[in-house]
Amino acid sequence: MHPNYRSRLFMNESQTTQINTLGEFGLIERLTKDIQPQQPSTVLGVGDDAAILDFEQGVQSKDKRRVLVTTDLLLEGVHFNLEYVPLKHLGYKAAVVNFSDIYAMNGTPTQITVGLGLSARFGVEQVEELYSGIRLACERYGVDLVGGDTSASMTGMTIAITCLGIADEKDIIRRSGAQVNDLICVSGNLGSAYLGLQLLERERIAQRGAVSGDNIAAFEGREYLLERQLKPEARRDIVEALRKAGIHPTAMMDISDGLSSELMHICKQSGVGCAIYEDKIPIDYQAAVVAEEMNLNIVTCALNGGEDYELLFTCPLSDYEKLIPLDDIYIVGHITKPELGAVLVGRNGEEIQLRAQGWQAFPEQHE
Amino acid sequence: MHPNYRSRLFMNESQTTQINTLGEFGLIERLTKDIQPQQPSTVLGVGDDAAILDFEQGVQSKDKRRVLVTTDLLLEGVHFNLEYVPLKHLGYKAAVVNFSDIYAMNGTPTQITVGLGLSARFGVEQVEELYSGIRLACERYGVDLVGGDTSASMTGMTIAITCLGIADEKDIIRRSGAQVNDLICVSGNLGSAYLGLQLLERERIAQRGAVSGDNIAAFEGREYLLERQLKPEARRDIVEALRKAGIHPTAMMDISDGLSSELMHICKQSGVGCAIYEDKIPIDYQAAVVAEEMNLNIVTCALNGGEDYELLFTCPLSDYEKLIPLDDIYIVGHITKPELGAVLVGRNGEEIQLRAQGWQAFPEQHE
Repeated sequence: MHPNYRSRLFMNESQTTQINTLGEFGLIERLTKDIQPQQPSTVLGVGDDAAILDFEQGVQSKDKRRVLVTTDLLLEGVHFNLEYVPLKHLGYKAAVVNFSDIYAMNGTPTQITVGLGLSARFGVEQVEELYSGIRLACERYGVDLVGGDTSASMTGMTIAITCLGIADEKDIIRRSGAQVNDLICVSGNLGSAYLGLQLLERERIAQRGAVSGDNIAAFEGREYLLERQLKPEARRDIVEALRKAGIHPTAMMDISDGLSSELMHICKQSGVGCAIYEDKIPIDYQAAVVAEEMNLNIVTCALNGGEDYELLFTCPLSDYEKLIPLDDIYIVGHITKPELGAVLVGRNGEEIQLRAQGWQAFPEQHE
Repeated sequence: MHPNYRSRLFMNESQTTQINTLGEFGLIERLTKDIQPQQPSTVLGVGDDAAILDFEQGVQSKDKRRVLVTTDLLLEGVHFNLEYVPLKHLGYKAAVVNFSDIYAMNGTPTQITVGLGLSARFGVEQVEELYSGIRLACERYGVDLVGGDTSASMTGMTIAITCLGIADEKDIIRRSGAQVNDLICVSGNLGSAYLGLQLLERERIAQRGAVSGDNIAAFEGREYLLERQLKPEARRDIVEALRKAGIHPTAMMDISDGLSSELMHICKQSGVGCAIYEDKIPIDYQAAVVAEEMNLNIVTCALNGGEDYELLFTCPLSDYEKLIPLDDIYIVGHITKPELGAVLVGRNGEEIQLRAQGWQAFPEQHE
């Protein structure tokens, strides 16, 4: 290899295609589409909540144990704003969103590694504060922090967490197993984290004087929404409840980018369509009130808001009786034939095509 | 939990201790010192090149297979400068430095996940270029890319790679096993990557007109140094040669921060001292010439330059005869009693205390 090492600002020479023309998922697909596993231990690579690895080749055991691995990158100014996100909450959330991906495979998170980029304005106490959140999350979910890399950052804060987990092979739930007529279920409620973010953003702007003080609403009575944004939990309880009830979902994932976007993933990977019903989507009353107050469509918030970290899963109609008694699980629709597409059925019976409008990893940008 | 959610720029309120007063290793020690593993699968956490995990509890097998995991964060402006680092090389290096950590445990890297933060100036083609380097490294080392997270970045480029690997329990080499009288060996040569960086930096500054053009030296004849900086390799060949020769090092790690700093890790974790000899440190002749030209002390470059990704290991005196025939491995000293400290013996027999002056993750900064 004899590249031309002469120094150059080559960025500007060859840029042609803006990333937002592909979007995050299009980009990932383009980058990884023809990757062929070389390792016998790689069972499933890119494309689900976590990769599935098998380190037991040649080992005799009755339960085939699999290792799951997932990674998440949180960048200051994109995923969080330190003007209103307390560092301890940020650490907690950074860990929990990774646990959520492992639960979404029906696995148990076991270890994390933490990569941390810190700008000069951070002192030791601030890093300890962030770490105390990570460690609290680890403690609560029984996960070990086993490695990391810590570095100065010339720019903003970066948190890169990778989470390992375990699951028996027979228990693992992928995105690709949904069958026609399966019920579509979600846990908790949707849109709350997004509305929590809107409240925090409104307050931030108000405090900067960009908007008249008249518009400032106190956070009293809205703590729940803030908590959903700042300190989400992974739905371990739902995974456990399903197991206890003898329900084995055919497909599952966590809702990080919004219900709409996640449903599209399940439909695409399972080769099916879906119909969900507007009036079945679970919405918290505080969220509804704040959406109204802010002139936002609450259903749009629920479909596209993201960061709820609730579980979305499908299961056979025959599980209906088992589902009904379960707390905090809602049937929102059913899986259809692929030719019917992914549709939202409105309150008046009108059908609207769902679009993956979820959180934009690559918004339109101008330099 | 009822934190005060009112928005605030709390950074400036409570900062007290600057991180550089502790340094990277001091900070990590402070953050992780009292972590108690909760998972039975955690064999070894923070503190070596990689964590050691055991996902085989309850499984009967003759070879106890262990999973290794390591993570590295590369940040623009801190770890690399895109003015002269080609994206393909950067991708290659980002992957290889992780493989190096797995080899340093005497393991085999098997999978990586890639977290990527991209600023708006990147187009799809540039990301593909970066990925082509990551994928080339994966291909050459037989590693699978199994997951990732890709996001816009408001600031510079971020690359967070986590690498998994496997090893039989009996083969794993930690930093903590060095014994008094063991031989200290290194592979390849040291200081070359650092001098490659100095060449690139000099050229960058010269091209900006900050230094008179008279000082610009062409890169001709120095390609080796540039390659060591821009496209390092992990020493899989050394690990294989040691295995073939029947040598099982008592301690091993890769040299990423400089020989001096890494030796201190081995001494601390093994509870020993060491003596290395200035005239035994392997140095490439191009490196020596460039150091001379730049008025740099070549031994200091070799001890503290970092980024060589060579292997540092110790083995019993009884392995001496087996070591001699091996290519590209050099005996640089021996392990001593802890009370003798870590010393460099100069050409005239003078003893100098080694200091961990390696690469500064947290340099003195002023805002």
